[in-house]
Order: sequence, then structure tokens, then C-alpha cells
Amino acid sequence: MRFGYKAWMLSEELKVESGEFFAEEEFRRGIVGFFGEEKFKASFDIDENLPLEGFSVAGGADGLKISGGCESGLLYGAYAALFALKRGEAAEKISISQKPAVEKRILNHWDNGDGSVERGYSGGSLFWRDGKIGYDLPRLRDYARLLASVGINEISVNNVNVRLQTAKLLTDEGLKDLVKVAEVFRPFGIRLIISVHFDSPVWLGGLKTSDPADPKVADFWNAAAARVYGKIPDLAGFLVKADSEFQSGPNAFGHTQDVGANVIAKALKPHGGTLYWRCFIYNCLQDWRDTVTDRPKAAYDTFFPLDGKFDQNVILQVKHGPSDFQVREPNSPLLGALKNTREALEFQIAQEYTGQQKDLYAWAVQWEEILDAPFNEERTTRDLIGKEIEAIVAVSNTGDDENWCGHLMAQANLFAFGRLAYNPALTAKAVTEEWVSLTFGNAAEIHAPIAKMLLDSRHVYEKYNAPLGICWMVCIHHHYGPSPDGYEYMKWGTYHRADTKAIGVDRTRNGTSYTAQYQPFVRDLYENLQTCPQEMLLYFHRLPYDFKLKDGRTMIQYIYDTHFEGVEGVENFITVWESLKGKIPDEAYTHVRERLAMQLENAKEWRDVINSYFYRKCGIPDEKGRTVYV
Amino acid sequence: MRFGYKAWMLSEELKVESGEFFAEEEFRRGIVGFFGEEKFKASFDIDENLPLEGFSVAGGADGLKISGGCESGLLYGAYAALFALKRGEAAEKISISQKPAVEKRILNHWDNGDGSVERGYSGGSLFWRDGKIGYDLPRLRDYARLLASVGINEISVNNVNVRLQTAKLLTDEGLKDLVKVAEVFRPFGIRLIISVHFDSPVWLGGLKTSDPADPKVADFWNAAAARVYGKIPDLAGFLVKADSEFQSGPNAFGHTQDVGANVIAKALKPHGGTLYWRCFIYNCLQDWRDTVTDRPKAAYDTFFPLDGKFDQNVILQVKHGPSDFQVREPNSPLLGALKNTREALEFQIAQEYTGQQKDLYAWAVQWEEILDAPFNEERTTRDLIGKEIEAIVAVSNTGDDENWCGHLMAQANLFAFGRLAYNPALTAKAVTEEWVSLTFGNAAEIHAPIAKMLLDSRHVYEKYNAPLGICWMVCIHHHYGPSPDGYEYMKWGTYHRADTKAIGVDRTRNGTSYTAQYQPFVRDLYENLQTCPQEMLLYFHRLPYDFKLKDGRTMIQYIYDTHFEGVEGVENFITVWESLKGKIPDEAYTHVRERLAMQLENAKEWRDVINSYFYRKCGIPDEKGRTVYV
Repeated sequence: MRFGYKAWMLSEELKVESGEFFAEEEFRRGIVGFFGEEKFKASFDIDENLPLEGFSVAGGADGLKISGGCESGLLYGAYAALFALKRGEAAEKISISQKPAVEKRILNHWDNGDGSVERGYSGGSLFWRDGKIGYDLPRLRDYARLLASVGINEISVNNVNVRLQTAKLLTDEGLKDLVKVAEVFRPFGIRLIISVHFDSPVWLGGLKTSDPADPKVADFWNAAAARVYGKIPDLAGFLVKADSEFQSGPNAFGHTQDVGANVIAKALKPHGGTLYWRCFIYNCLQDWRDTVTDRPKAAYDTFFPLDGKFDQNVILQVKHGPSDFQVREPNSPLLGALKNTREALEFQIAQEYTGQQKDLYAWAVQWEEILDAPFNEERTTRDLIGKEIEAIVAVSNTGDDENWCGHLMAQANLFAFGRLAYNPALTAKAVTEEWVSLTFGNAAEIHAPIAKMLLDSRHVYEKYNAPLGICWMVCIHHHYGPSPDGYEYMKWGTYHRADTKAIGVDRTRNGTSYTAQYQPFVRDLYENLQTCPQEMLLYFHRLPYDFKLKDGRTMIQYIYDTHFEGVEGVENFITVWESLKGKIPDEAYTHVRERLAMQLENAKEWRDVINSYFYRKCGIPDEKGRTVYV
Repeated sequence: MRFGYKAWMLSEELKVESGEFFAEEEFRRGIVGFFGEEKFKASFDIDENLPLEGFSVAGGADGLKISGGCESGLLYGAYAALFALKRGEAAEKISISQKPAVEKRILNHWDNGDGSVERGYSGGSLFWRDGKIGYDLPRLRDYARLLASVGINEISVNNVNVRLQTAKLLTDEGLKDLVKVAEVFRPFGIRLIISVHFDSPVWLGGLKTSDPADPKVADFWNAAAARVYGKIPDLAGFLVKADSEFQSGPNAFGHTQDVGANVIAKALKPHGGTLYWRCFIYNCLQDWRDTVTDRPKAAYDTFFPLDGKFDQNVILQVKHGPSDFQVREPNSPLLGALKNTREALEFQIAQEYTGQQKDLYAWAVQWEEILDAPFNEERTTRDLIGKEIEAIVAVSNTGDDENWCGHLMAQANLFAFGRLAYNPALTAKAVTEEWVSLTFGNAAEIHAPIAKMLLDSRHVYEKYNAPLGICWMVCIHHHYGPSPDGYEYMKWGTYHRADTKAIGVDRTRNGTSYTAQYQPFVRDLYENLQTCPQEMLLYFHRLPYDFKLKDGRTMIQYIYDTHFEGVEGVENFITVWESLKGKIPDEAYTHVRERLAMQLENAKEWRDVINSYFYRKCGIPDEKGRTVYV
């Protein structure tokens, strides 16, 4: 079952007869790949009454009938049919009808020109090597199929931290190879996005300034867009990280974000392109002594006053939380708050702070929590999707490792992202079970324990990590492993200010007033110690170690308890996994077993460091007398 | 006075008539460089009654008479005469007679093949670029003069952490350029040392093992030595960092250090070469939970049992302290403890933990403290030199910055090292004043305040850093700036274990028994809280924050006080320096003023982080009510 180890979707090139539609060819290829012969037949048609990328699949006596609202819809229908057949559904009884919740379902690659991947834990870049893009087009074709099979339809191909090598994508030289990459992804309904550097007018255009108010700068962007669209007419657009973590931006020239965004957006407009503008802006040179500035407030403070000032082809790309893809954060108050500005919701599939694809971590569970969280008294965040939120984006977890994702089980995250972006109403349980059965088969004795491991993994990981939403107790720079004070005296705006009595930042109206950025219902929910979700207590409140939780335990005892439980959870994963030996392919068994050993080490390190750290701060021992290193 | 800015010694190539001895030419060049014309004359002769590298300089009616025990001694005599004349001594009255305390006065360069310098703060390598050595031979000639002028007579040219590029120095290809470098240094009496990788037999020899017991490995080293000495017959020897910080070594093959060293030493022996074998061996993968292992014990534990087992051409190279060039450490108990093994004392001129040539730090003051420290009831460490200690080594602070040392004032450290290695009886005050007057001239109004700044700098720096010898409260990896818990949960064996009540590791007989490695007199001195030098209290003892010091202050109050005083010390440096404006060359004034501004920032950061850290640990406020950030 080597195929299953590589990914859920067929990754060898099987030659099959072509049909009227590309979807037909993909279907035949899938059937032969999955079943060894053309066991199932299907008919294909475009039905303009269906939503644009929607589809229907209907079983019948003469085979399956697959309809799509367009070629992409048809392709999604073909893959949906393949998945259903692979999961053992009877062909005659298949009846599926779907349409995407948002038009734009996007993967951002943080790939550098030298072949490295920022926050990549799956080998090198699939796109770049030695400054050139597209060095392995056949593998990119496999990758395109993998992404299309879960409904992803736009990808950025270079890191948002753009350096000179990838900045050159805007030049004739850079475009030469990018055109070939676009050709690979085009039949799969996937359009490219280019991450561009705000200083491109200086870097590439020979100008003395990147000031967006300078007409020469506008000319540069107009010419650059024309050049790119001349070669890749269906390019989705540009992506910009500006005024963020040492990247240049409009602030440097005394302008607000809209001024910087609109000059580029206007260049894209004639070509139908979208400008994705990231909202991850904060003071990364904060003085730790400054207790007034509160980093989580930054994105809202920057962008909320600009609502309505962005051109219509600008989409603001907002990270799901106000910090940075931490194990536990509240949702960003910016999501849904902008009434006259388009927004994208940004996730991270790469496990930067969540185990770096050594530790098991099913993002789908956290994403479900995020979507379930209230926007106001009437609506959840999920209810914003397809309305205020027009696009769903994620930072990719893929690389040139044979299994694409470093950890075989991390494939579940790529799979879940695509499925949830297409249909956010799906449960974490449903998409996780779907991936498990496509990868390991449908036998309950295999399927159920693996799915349970994945579904438990988010909470097990959270238990042994930074407690109660405190964030950032992580080793600096590389972000793997515990370092409770690692960021405490640094410039990144990430402080917990633990002393002998208490820990946390008061973000209520009595403190930094971060909570005021939320809708009143949510603000009150988080401000009130009785209603604030327990797992986010330390995100919003500064609390003494002997604070009583609802179950009567002190906070410090809860911290000790959860950290012991976290390690037990990983030990339990290992027991479960070992029970699967011989039932799943050896290669997959051994690979995951090795990663679980690494995870156990990591979990123990977190448990012991966090417990010791708190004991050394407050001097209160574990009531149960377990080993806390003093 | 551009010359003064570049260094104390002439660095332009002035063409002068050559004489019978190279020293004559150097003398004439110096006179013309210093005084613009051949204002002073001298006669030169080799006097075999003088010690080998000793010399005498005598003023007289017909000019100076300079004698040397050999060509090197003559050269040192010429430089001594130049220095005296430059400092304004009357030629007729000059009368100097000196001889070196140790035969080997060595600089280790931690330069990498790619041109970077490990722990280098003065630009790139003077030796290496793009994998090749000797890219700028004229500048190396200036450098050789600089080193010879203070009596340095051996240098290693590549990092002790040897990588493939510099490992290749042992090959014909690598030697081709090294020969040219040797030619540059030879007339200045400076011999080269090559740092070699213990795995060279595998890397270069195509062998399957580096096991020193394998006859093929011995053959490899014999051939390598023969090859090198065939090209550079006066090579001083090889330098090895083995079994240390992920470098390979004899331990990997189940052998003790002597077995690894002797196989290489035997290869060097027929050629008269010395093997320098570093003693910086410890467990760099320690579990922080392990309170039995105590890193400072490692070198003694490893090498003391091997006393007498090393070949006679092996010199063990021992860092001055048992930690790693920290701001405050006791001396290594290994120094002087080996009765049948040759030893070198290793200093670091590079300011890795002492301000990285941004902060002012006169090592001479610390070195004097080190030399003054007792070895036993009768002898100081200085008394070991020339007896148990046969060589003095330092890690260089030089690079290709125009001023050689990054910070102009850091030149004083290179100068002081050479002078003290030649004559350890010199005081820090004497060598510092010597450098100041050679660099800034002899006017008291300039000379005195600069010398005082330098002489105060070590204690000012110590005041705002990790207190009372606690060590390692420094940002991880790069080692600049404070991070009190940065190394606390890591694998490097560097823990202070601060909790709400106390801090430090008990290294007495009640604790790890590290003190037992010292001679009984010194052991008792450090074990006893009454006699342990105050500034090393936390190196040897675990103490409560309210521990009473001799002056009646609590330890925590002492920590607060010194940290405020440290910043005041830097502010005072700035006041003093600003009073020199217009009196010293603008270029030097501005350069040092900029560095002092950086130092003030750093000092404030240390003050506030350390004070906050301790306040947050113990909750005891500053008695004087100054600002401690909570």
C-alpha cells in the first residue's frame, strides 16, 4: 500500500484515454489506480444550473452520472465519486450534491528561492531550487491533483517574506518558468498567486522609492501586472506582507495600509486580479517594560479605522487569532468586524507551534472550535463564511518529503483544510474519518483507533503545552519545545509577566482593553471570569496561582494535572499504535511509531519544564505528590 | 592620526633599506612611520648569552644598541625600542632587558573556510574567503607585524570546530596556499598551527574509521604530518578539539583522550611538532533534571586520571575557568594539577560573553585576577607559568574590520594578551597605559581618563551582568544580552535553579563536590562562606535571596544595587569620553561614542531584566525604591 503511504490521492502518472473533459481522464486514472482496472464507469456533463464550482454525483444502473457547474465542479465531482467508491459505497446508491462555501480556497506556500521552506517541516520546497521555480514539473502535477482533490483552487508559490530571488517572479526572466508551473496547475482548476515585495519598485524597477503615492511607483506596478498577466492571464493575484516583521510597507512613507494596497490593487484590476493584503502587523520591536502596548490589539487597531478605504479587489487576509497560530487563542476581533472591506480567514497547516509534524496534531479539531466560536449573540464565526469572510487561506504544511507532510498523519491536516474550506459545515470528526479511511482503509479495527488518536491529538498536545491560553512559552526562533521565559524579555510583544503570585496580562477594561475590540456579547463573555472559557482564562486575565477553577481545583493544581495527563495521552497513543502493528503497512507503522517516540520526549520535556517553572515561581507543590523537578 | 585608529603598530608598508637582520628593517620602518624620518639609529646583534627570545636595548651616545638571543629576540628588542621612543622616552636613557616567561605564546583563530569567524565581532576572517586561505597577503603581513610587536609567536589559522573546507589544509591542495601564509609570518617569528579534525582519516583519507587504535589511522596521521612538514618545516603543530560539542574524538571508539592524542602526537614527533589538545570536554546533552552531573567538574574528571599518559609533545590546552569564558569564574582546578603532563592556559580575547566588542571590557584586569588567584597556600596561578604551565593561548578577537578588533578599544585586549603572555608579571595597569599612550599619545589629560575607563570597564561590566558568579544568564546561542532562564532547561549543563527562596548550585562537599578538585587550601577557601570571594559566592553556593553579605546587605539588595551602579558606570564612561571630544581624532571619538551608546542600551537591558527577574522570583522589593519593572 505504498500509494497510501504517499497520500490519499493517486500520485503515480497512469496513462488513460482522454475524454471530453479533464475530469473524465482523472476519474479513469483514479479508478485504475484504486481498483487496478476500470471497474466503474461514469458519464460527465456541465450543468449550468449548478453553482459554479458545485457538482452532483448520482449512481444509476448505467454507471455514475457526474455533473458540474464548470470544469472545476466536474473535477470535484469526479474526485468525490472516487472517494466514495474507495470508501466502499455502492456505486448505485451514491448521491452527492455539493457547492463551495467560498469562492477562494487558498494555500500559501512559504517557500524560498533557495529551496528552503519557512516553518517547513517536510523537507525542501516542492517549487523552488537554486533560485529557479518548477524544477520537478511531474511531481508538481501530482501535487496539483492532491490539492484539487480536496477543492483547493488558488496557491501562492513563494514565501510572503519575499527575498530577491522570488521577488524576480515579476520579471520576464522569473516568469519564464512560472508559466510552466501555471500550465501544470491550470487543468486542475488551480490558479497561481505571486507573493510580491513592497519594495519591488526599487528592487526590480530601479526606482529610488516604493512610496505608493509616487506616480512612478504606480507605473511600475501597472507595468508589472501587465507583464505577468500577459504570460499568465488567469493568475489569481498578488499577496503582500507589508509593514510586518521588518518587511517594508506604506507606513515607511507615512501612509496608511489602504494607500499601499490600493496602488497595487489598481494595477491588478484591469486583469481581474485580486490583491491579498496580510493583516499580521504589530510592533516587533516592543520594549518589554511597556505594559500599555498589547500586541493582540495591533491588527484591529491598524485596520478597523480603514474599513471601506480599500479597493474592491483587495482582500484583507486575517489570521484566525490575534497572536500567531498558538495552541490556544481567541478568534481575531477583526474577523467580521469590517463591513465594507473584503476579508479572508487565514489558518496555518504547518505545525509551527503545534509540534512541527513530529507531534500528532489534528488541526481540524481546533478549526472546528474556531468556527464554532461566537461572533456575536446570534452568529458563530462559521456563519460569517461566504458572507463577511470571502476566502479561506492556509499556510501549507507540504514539502518534498516522499509523504508530502513530514509526518504521514499530518496529511490529515492538508486534507481537512481543503474539505473544510469547501464546506465549513463538515465536522472535524467527519473529515478526519474520511482521511483515515482513504489512507488506511475501512476496516473498523484500524479505522476507529486511528481516527480517535487524531481527534484526541489536539487536546493532548494542548495539555502538555503552555497552559490556559498563556501562549509563547516556546523556544525562541525555532518554536519547538518549552521555554517559559524565552520570549519574556524580548521585543516581540509576547509577555506573560509571571511573578511569585500571579501570571498573565489583564486584557479586560481594567487592563489593556483588548476585549473592547470584540462585539459586546463576546467582549462580556471573555471579560467575565465566570463565562470566559476556561482554556482561555490566561489569555484574557491575570490570575493568582491559587485561583479557584469551577471544579474547585486551584489553577496551579490544574496546570500540574493537565501536564501529567498530556504525557499519559501520548503514552496512550503509543499503546494504541502498537496494537496496529501488522494490520497496517509496515512502512507507515514504523514511520509513525518513530514520530510518536519523538512526541513522547517532547511531551515529557514540556511537562517537566512547565511544572518546574511554575513550582519555582510560586513554591506551591503538587497536591498529588508527583515528581516536579525542583 | 589614522595610523593610531588602525592599531598601535605601523600597518602601512613603508619601503626601507634592508639590513643584516629583519629586525633592522622593522626598526627603520617603525622610526620612519612614527616620526616621519630616520630620527633614531640603532645597532643590532645576536648575543647567544641572552635567553632565546630575550633581548636587551641600551641607549648610548652613538644610538641604541639592540641585542637578541635569536632573530626573534632581536625583533622584540626592535619593537620594544620603538614603543619606548614613541612613548617619549629619551633615547640615551633607554635600558630594557626582557625574556619571555613561556616559550609558546599563541593566538587561536576561530576562522571558518567560508570567511566567517566563530564568535567573531570584527568583520570577517583575515585568513579565509570562499574556502581558500591567504586571500590578502599584504594585510596578513601587517597583521603579522601587529602580533610580533607584542611577542606572539604561534597562531592557529582555522577554527577548532573544523569543517570540511579547513580540514583540507592537510591535503596538497590546501597546503598550496597555506605555504604562502607561512612565508608571510615566518620573518616575524610566528609559526603556524593547523586545527585538524579528528575524523580526518575518514574525511580525507578514505578510511572507514578514525579509531586511533587502527594502524591505518596511524598511517594516515603519519603521512599527513609528513606531507605538511614537507611544505612547512617550521610548523608549530596541530590543534584538536575532540569529544567536545559534537566534535568526534577517541571516546567514540571507546578510548580515553590520551589514546586519541598520542596517535597524532607520534606523527608530529619526527618533525618536532607539538599537539595541542583541548580540555573543553563536557556533556553537552545533559538532562536539566540531572542534579548530580555538574559541568564544571568535567575537564578535571576527564584529564586528571590520565596524568602521565600523554606523549611528551602533547600540550593539554585548559580554559582558564571551568565554565566557558564567563564574566566571573574561578580558575580551572586542572591548571597546575597535572604533574606529568604539559599544560597551556587558554584565554579568550574575543568578547563572547563580555560585550562582543560593543561593550568596553579590558580583559587584562580579569587576567590579572586570574593570575593572582591562589593555586595553593604558597603559590598563585602566576607562579605556575613557565613551570607547570608551558604555554599561554588566547582565542583571537581580530577580523578584517579596518581597526582589526571591531571596537577600537578592544585592541587593548590583543595588545595586553601578547604583553602578558611574554611577561605575566606585568600589571593590568601597566599594559593598559602602554596601549593607551601608543594609541592616543602621552598627554596626561587624554591618557589618564582613557586608561581609567579601560581599567574600570571589567568591573562595570560585571556589575550589570549575571551577579555573583552565577554565569549563563545570557541569550542563548549568540550570547549577547540577558536571558536569565535562557539556558535553564537546556542540554548544556548550565543551571542556576532559581526558585522563590534561593539560587545557585551547591558545589561544596554538601553538594556536587566540585570544590574537591582544588588543592585543599583553595577548596577550603571556596567552601567556606566566610572566605569565599564575594563575587564568586553563587559559583560555589546555593544561597537564599536574604543571605547577609559582609557589609550587612542582603544578597538581593546587593544585586539591585550593583545593577543600578553598572548602568551609572557606563553613563560615567560616556561623560568622560565626551570630555575628550576635539582632543582625540574625530574618527576615533565618534566610533567609540557610538559603541558606548550601544553599551548603555545593553547595560540598561541587563539591569532591568536581571532586577525584574529576581523581583519576580522572590517578591522582595528594592529597599531604595528605584524602578524595578514588575
